[in-house]
Amino acid sequence: MQVAASQSFRRVLSSMCTEPHPAARDAAERFLASNPGDPTTYPSVSALEDEAVSLLGDITGLSNPHGYVASGGTEANIQAVRAARNLAATDDPNVVAPESAHFSFQKAADVLGVELRLAAVADDRRADPDAMAELVDDDTVLVVGIAGTTEYGRVDPIPALADIAHDAGALLHVDAAWGGFVLPFTDYEWNFEHAAVDTMGIDPHKMGQAAVPAGGFLTREKRVLDALAVETPYLESTSQATLTGTRSGAGVASAWAAMDALWRDGYREQFERSQANAEWIADAFDSRGYDVVDPVLPLVAIDVPRETVEALQERGWRVSPTGSGELRIVCMPHVTRAMLEEFVADLDAVRA
Amino acid sequence: MQVAASQSFRRVLSSMCTEPHPAARDAAERFLASNPGDPTTYPSVSALEDEAVSLLGDITGLSNPHGYVASGGTEANIQAVRAARNLAATDDPNVVAPESAHFSFQKAADVLGVELRLAAVADDRRADPDAMAELVDDDTVLVVGIAGTTEYGRVDPIPALADIAHDAGALLHVDAAWGGFVLPFTDYEWNFEHAAVDTMGIDPHKMGQAAVPAGGFLTREKRVLDALAVETPYLESTSQATLTGTRSGAGVASAWAAMDALWRDGYREQFERSQANAEWIADAFDSRGYDVVDPVLPLVAIDVPRETVEALQERGWRVSPTGSGELRIVCMPHVTRAMLEEFVADLDAVRA
Repeated sequence: MQVAASQSFRRVLSSMCTEPHPAARDAAERFLASNPGDPTTYPSVSALEDEAVSLLGDITGLSNPHGYVASGGTEANIQAVRAARNLAATDDPNVVAPESAHFSFQKAADVLGVELRLAAVADDRRADPDAMAELVDDDTVLVVGIAGTTEYGRVDPIPALADIAHDAGALLHVDAAWGGFVLPFTDYEWNFEHAAVDTMGIDPHKMGQAAVPAGGFLTREKRVLDALAVETPYLESTSQATLTGTRSGAGVASAWAAMDALWRDGYREQFERSQANAEWIADAFDSRGYDVVDPVLPLVAIDVPRETVEALQERGWRVSPTGSGELRIVCMPHVTRAMLEEFVADLDAVRA
Repeated sequence: MQVAASQSFRRVLSSMCTEPHPAARDAAERFLASNPGDPTTYPSVSALEDEAVSLLGDITGLSNPHGYVASGGTEANIQAVRAARNLAATDDPNVVAPESAHFSFQKAADVLGVELRLAAVADDRRADPDAMAELVDDDTVLVVGIAGTTEYGRVDPIPALADIAHDAGALLHVDAAWGGFVLPFTDYEWNFEHAAVDTMGIDPHKMGQAAVPAGGFLTREKRVLDALAVETPYLESTSQATLTGTRSGAGVASAWAAMDALWRDGYREQFERSQANAEWIADAFDSRGYDVVDPVLPLVAIDVPRETVEALQERGWRVSPTGSGELRIVCMPHVTRAMLEEFVADLDAVRA
């Protein structure tokens, strides 16, 4: 078998991963063989991880962040549920999330043995605080808000959800895996400064332009991170809070390098380009008579017949539908205006 | 902050990771931006993963393997416990393992809410089937055997442990994370062909010379892998059995490339070099009057005073102790005879 030359992003429109920034790629290549899971053996990459967590704190409004560079948003969501479960007294824990939550919360529920309660969202596709509050009870250990939903890029009312969580003695987790690197340039209230957020997931390998795997898991309080620690014989460090053991030094180094290069002007410029592209492609579909969910962040969902999507896929476009079957276009950094123009030309061709 | 030039392995003696094979490094660099967690969007790396799993089956004696390239041994151990728990009927599941098991089983127990029962090992530092059998009961969902322990490189009596597991209606998991790429060149009975093994962890990023993160999780039966699946909206594929979501294409591609380049003659040659180095360094310590645990695989533990270890660490050697405080030297591919000679010269210097 021959290895394909490499991954091409030329026609990828529905992934939340992207081509890494050149500085991130360079750093990843230099740390391919290191393991931040063993910080005494690999001190260089461990120091980079400390810097990366500090930068994630800058981006999310947390001056003294605890956390680490995780494998991605799924790990951050599992860890948030695990920490909340471990800190709570109940034997029958539940987590309350909007139905727009990423499917990794289903995985977290299965893995961790907690009940997942999903609340219907409001007409604006954001979490409905009243519907959430109705599902919360004494056994609720965690309330989840999404800052940039996977399907529609919506931002939940985080301050209201924080109130609901804390009134019930639960923690509040914000899933900003995709949104975290664009929300600083919007007026949304989503971060540790805006509300009493306890834990957050924010992925450098999505809009942060790091190489996979580079997620971020942050906690406001040290005791919440400590609730995840297990003892580590064989290693010089004495405990480990991460979900995996050996971890990717490439991911850690590239997360640091991307944030060092791009925070904050580079990310602002990318957000503006991506948002303009999202509005452009939304207009293009709208002017052709399609129903378009307006992009409040750089992510567009469009009601397109299945056969049209399949015809576009046959032309090599990597597009995938939402749960309701809508065509979903994520305006990641690798998605250029020229690429979208080519896509619309193909759209017109397959409709003809 | 300046990024360190790169990770150096020049004085790393206690890590189970190593410098990737050149073909593995090259493949990792070409797939840094891909995500095998989304196989329809990233078909090239997904095809490589199928090939990698097939090669892992060749190495472990399984002609029709199910599984995937995981983040490492910790994930494989968590997933083995999770699958066994999910398939069992009990509300109070327990896992029986030898006390030599890696600490990731403690993590698995915490994450998954199962009881971990650790059996004392025999005088030869291998699992004692009688001690294991005593801990097994109707609520035992998994019995664990280690094929190459982290501290002493010992191989448990896997066929006897398989009998114990299956007599109790439990599954048998073999942790061959470190040993899996050297055991094919020994007479040990450790794999799917030698015994009724149900699941196995075997890490290409350890002795397999792939880039981190590249672990392997294998199951004999499809139903065991399926016990881990959750549904995946947004993705074209309909379910996901992995613990993380987005995964490292670099790890997958480099696992494939390393195995394609090295299985099986390259791995045999490396095993012979590593084993000879382990015996050489064991003799060097033995001739200086130290108590040495003989290396049955390329891993040596030596009873060395703490101050000597610290003096060696001050000279830049990355060495870490076992749980009992012994100096531990893992003869990974990057550990050369010249490096060990330099280490012994430093040993003599700090003892002088």
